[in-house]
Amino acid sequence: MYFDQDTIRVQLRARQSSTTFAHTLGVVAAAELLAQRYGADSEQVRVAALLHDLARDLETSELLKKAGEYGILVDEIEAREPLILHARVGAAMARHQLGVEDAVVLQAIERHTTGAPGMSLVDSIIYVADYIEPGRDFPGVDEARRAAGQDLDRALLLAMNGTLDHLIRGNRIIHPRTVEARNALLQRLLALKDNRWSGQ
Amino acid sequence: MYFDQDTIRVQLRARQSSTTFAHTLGVVAAAELLAQRYGADSEQVRVAALLHDLARDLETSELLKKAGEYGILVDEIEAREPLILHARVGAAMARHQLGVEDAVVLQAIERHTTGAPGMSLVDSIIYVADYIEPGRDFPGVDEARRAAGQDLDRALLLAMNGTLDHLIRGNRIIHPRTVEARNALLQRLLALKDNRWSGQ
Repeated sequence: MYFDQDTIRVQLRARQSSTTFAHTLGVVAAAELLAQRYGADSEQVRVAALLHDLARDLETSELLKKAGEYGILVDEIEAREPLILHARVGAAMARHQLGVEDAVVLQAIERHTTGAPGMSLVDSIIYVADYIEPGRDFPGVDEARRAAGQDLDRALLLAMNGTLDHLIRGNRIIHPRTVEARNALLQRLLALKDNRWSGQ
Repeated sequence: MYFDQDTIRVQLRARQSSTTFAHTLGVVAAAELLAQRYGADSEQVRVAALLHDLARDLETSELLKKAGEYGILVDEIEAREPLILHARVGAAMARHQLGVEDAVVLQAIERHTTGAPGMSLVDSIIYVADYIEPGRDFPGVDEARRAAGQDLDRALLLAMNGTLDHLIRGNRIIHPRTVEARNALLQRLLALKDNRWSGQ
């Protein structure tokens, strides 16, 4: 174990709204189940789930300031929608403020919002758990929950599709990495020659 | 006028299936109305509409071969979904086989499938006409038709959203340019401080 998880919880309560903290505990619960189901390291998954929204409640100005402090290059899309930065800033805070050094954990925190090409097992678990945690209630979430118990990649595709759909309907900017992540996943699924999941 | 449009129609009938040819005539009709409504050059719009699907019925192998002949660099996504190439290959064929030299026309043909950042008036008209032509019948097309009579940018956003939605539901790869095109359009709409169209 890296360090005392009670310490993390105290840190989180101080930094997160009650809504975000409740969501975080839901993600921890969902992620632990997925870690068991798919044989991931439960310690890595738990820490990543606990910390994934560490920077979620920071103001826009604070996100941009911390990005500068941690040497995170802000791209054009992030400059217009700084909220996206909470994933990368959160990973940097976990590393520099809380001393988390495990690259697997830090990467899963970084990737939980846009995803990225080549999602690891832990990346996928955190992304899916964030989408299906018990507090979520929107059309399609139950289908994603069922998929998560059977086929993690299929659940990941549903979560990415649902996230894109949400951004499209809201007329919101889409980070290109979101699409690159989904394209890479489709390529992996195609390479597996497993067409069960495909609507094509 | 560049050249005899009857000649183009003869060329198209020889290269296109009856379905594609009927669709093409629908796009010409819709594009002509939009050209009048928004004050675009009717000649440029008509030629672009006629030729937008010049390469639409080529086989995958033929599309890749012609891309090579015309010096079109095929990216990773196009290599996996060569159908996307019909727009860029079609523009090259219009130029090299039919002698179309007008950059405005060629660009509108090139951009009619993925769109691109910084859509011109003619680009937008062809993209929207392709989406709303009378032969189209899918959920949302009537809303896009109504929008096209009032606000071309809003109709363009609806067409891009609908195109992305279609690709997501079909579990199909999305070309990053599609998302870049939509992000640039959202930025333009935001710069106009016209929030009527926004669902946010």
